[in-house]
Amino acid sequence: MEGTVPELTHRAVRDAALLRPAAGARQLGGGAAADDWSVYQYRIREFLSAWLPPKTEAPYELHSAIRYAALGKGKHLRPLLCYAAGEVLEIDPRFLDAMAGAVELIHAFSLVHDDLPAMDDDELRRGRPTVHVVYGEPLAILAGDALQIAAFQLLASDRQLSRTPQVQSLAIGILAAAAGSRGMTGGQALDIAAEGHQPTIVELEDLYFRKTGQLIRASIGMACTWREQADPFATEQLNGFASRIGLAFQIRDDLLEYISTKATTGKSTHSDRDNHKATYPGLVGVGRARHRAQELYDEAMSLLDFLGHAALPLRRLANFIVRRKE
Amino acid sequence: MEGTVPELTHRAVRDAALLRPAAGARQLGGGAAADDWSVYQYRIREFLSAWLPPKTEAPYELHSAIRYAALGKGKHLRPLLCYAAGEVLEIDPRFLDAMAGAVELIHAFSLVHDDLPAMDDDELRRGRPTVHVVYGEPLAILAGDALQIAAFQLLASDRQLSRTPQVQSLAIGILAAAAGSRGMTGGQALDIAAEGHQPTIVELEDLYFRKTGQLIRASIGMACTWREQADPFATEQLNGFASRIGLAFQIRDDLLEYISTKATTGKSTHSDRDNHKATYPGLVGVGRARHRAQELYDEAMSLLDFLGHAALPLRRLANFIVRRKE
Repeated sequence: MEGTVPELTHRAVRDAALLRPAAGARQLGGGAAADDWSVYQYRIREFLSAWLPPKTEAPYELHSAIRYAALGKGKHLRPLLCYAAGEVLEIDPRFLDAMAGAVELIHAFSLVHDDLPAMDDDELRRGRPTVHVVYGEPLAILAGDALQIAAFQLLASDRQLSRTPQVQSLAIGILAAAAGSRGMTGGQALDIAAEGHQPTIVELEDLYFRKTGQLIRASIGMACTWREQADPFATEQLNGFASRIGLAFQIRDDLLEYISTKATTGKSTHSDRDNHKATYPGLVGVGRARHRAQELYDEAMSLLDFLGHAALPLRRLANFIVRRKE
Repeated sequence: MEGTVPELTHRAVRDAALLRPAAGARQLGGGAAADDWSVYQYRIREFLSAWLPPKTEAPYELHSAIRYAALGKGKHLRPLLCYAAGEVLEIDPRFLDAMAGAVELIHAFSLVHDDLPAMDDDELRRGRPTVHVVYGEPLAILAGDALQIAAFQLLASDRQLSRTPQVQSLAIGILAAAAGSRGMTGGQALDIAAEGHQPTIVELEDLYFRKTGQLIRASIGMACTWREQADPFATEQLNGFASRIGLAFQIRDDLLEYISTKATTGKSTHSDRDNHKATYPGLVGVGRARHRAQELYDEAMSLLDFLGHAALPLRRLANFIVRRKE
């Protein structure tokens, strides 16, 4: 796939755009201009690490499990999307920390519960033993519960957001809708219902949009709440972009799962196939799956055209997401 | 215990107070004046039934499980406390529906996850098979997740609350804090940690306050957000009342569990003892446990004195809660 994703051109234009710092980029030491996303990855880890209860606070095991699940070395794609949308819309990243943190906590919760023996029964995640392997099943259930509650507590208690309670409520509503029974959790239920029978492509895309797409869209959608009233068109376009990138991301994830070996992803691979879950490449073949991911990527990109050069952070990030190594 | 709980006196005074309708009591057909709480129990079930996604919406099994867990015939004590606080503070119950519904959803989620095989492994709840028995373990995990997310979505999307986003954010923060790792979920983790060793009474009360007391306090605390700025003293007193009633309630629950038979509670009894969990009567004996519940009840009541006759709905409810049959 790498060869087929269009390279970003006009390097000079892009560098110039990236040198124009977003409102809060300076406090990141100009890191937003770097070609990788480590500055924001560092930022969100530090932010969550400071906000989450310490291991030294009772209940110790629970807080330890929560930190283990939330502060691992993931790519933090959802927070990155939130911050990148912020760069595009010129929003100070301090206004986005709670949103980026909350979406990461929801993602972390979903992984902990997904990995449970009664669910996917995975023992390895990002190269480390899963939470229930380390802390036992009861603590893993509770840690997942606490992580998702923490997401809403973070949004409700954030000092920046509390100054604009309207934005705060909107963001909480967006995150809850994306995570709930009509969003991510519903997607997981559809995933279970789909086991053992062959879904159609339409059904699978619906499932994927819920399971992965909605939370990815919420990452950008929450950032947009700062600009929603001022610019509803931008919000709509960015939501369309996010939906497509979310679906492309999940198809890409399928492809990685389908092709990769344990060594390169750090997950127990083939678990989806072992569990007889439908996957995109399983349903239509690797070639058509790649083609669909590319198509979604192209559509997503074209939705950013209205932004001109300002769209570059999101373009770069979409590129980063969809070009992950197979 | 029934004999030792002070009977409400001055029936004439009380009836007069109850005939003075709270702001929204008229729409309840004057039901708030009835001596039982069925009007509000009906109200909250109807409210949640209308708000939760129907069974006919995909994912069908998940939505069916959610409704099974949330709409069972419980006592709905937490919503009742919310509405009763509203009567005391003269808040229209329409302003409390989302809060009452949200705390009930959090309670329902906690029961679903508590009953899981990896947790208490209970097969019966309120006389019905538990969610995982009916829908399987994966769906039960997801239904619990969706229920807790729904609680926050309900608060964030409620039309009445959205007109006062400051109250909305406060309520969300109160509920999240009460449910999270420093509240209910943390209490459950302490419960697990306490298995196999004898906690002190101080430790057990701390555990109980987290596991049960915090959510009960939140039921009243959320209602208080409508009056918090106007009357911080009332909020403080009512929070103190709720904390004590919450602890008394849990000790009472222990006593019921300790003494009762399967037939009268509809739960598989003695499961706490079988699991070697510490209980209040197990630690100090039935007599001292009853005495402590009474002491907490008396303290709670005295905290309402400042309200005069207006406190009657909360007094009645506390009485109802603590006088549940052994």
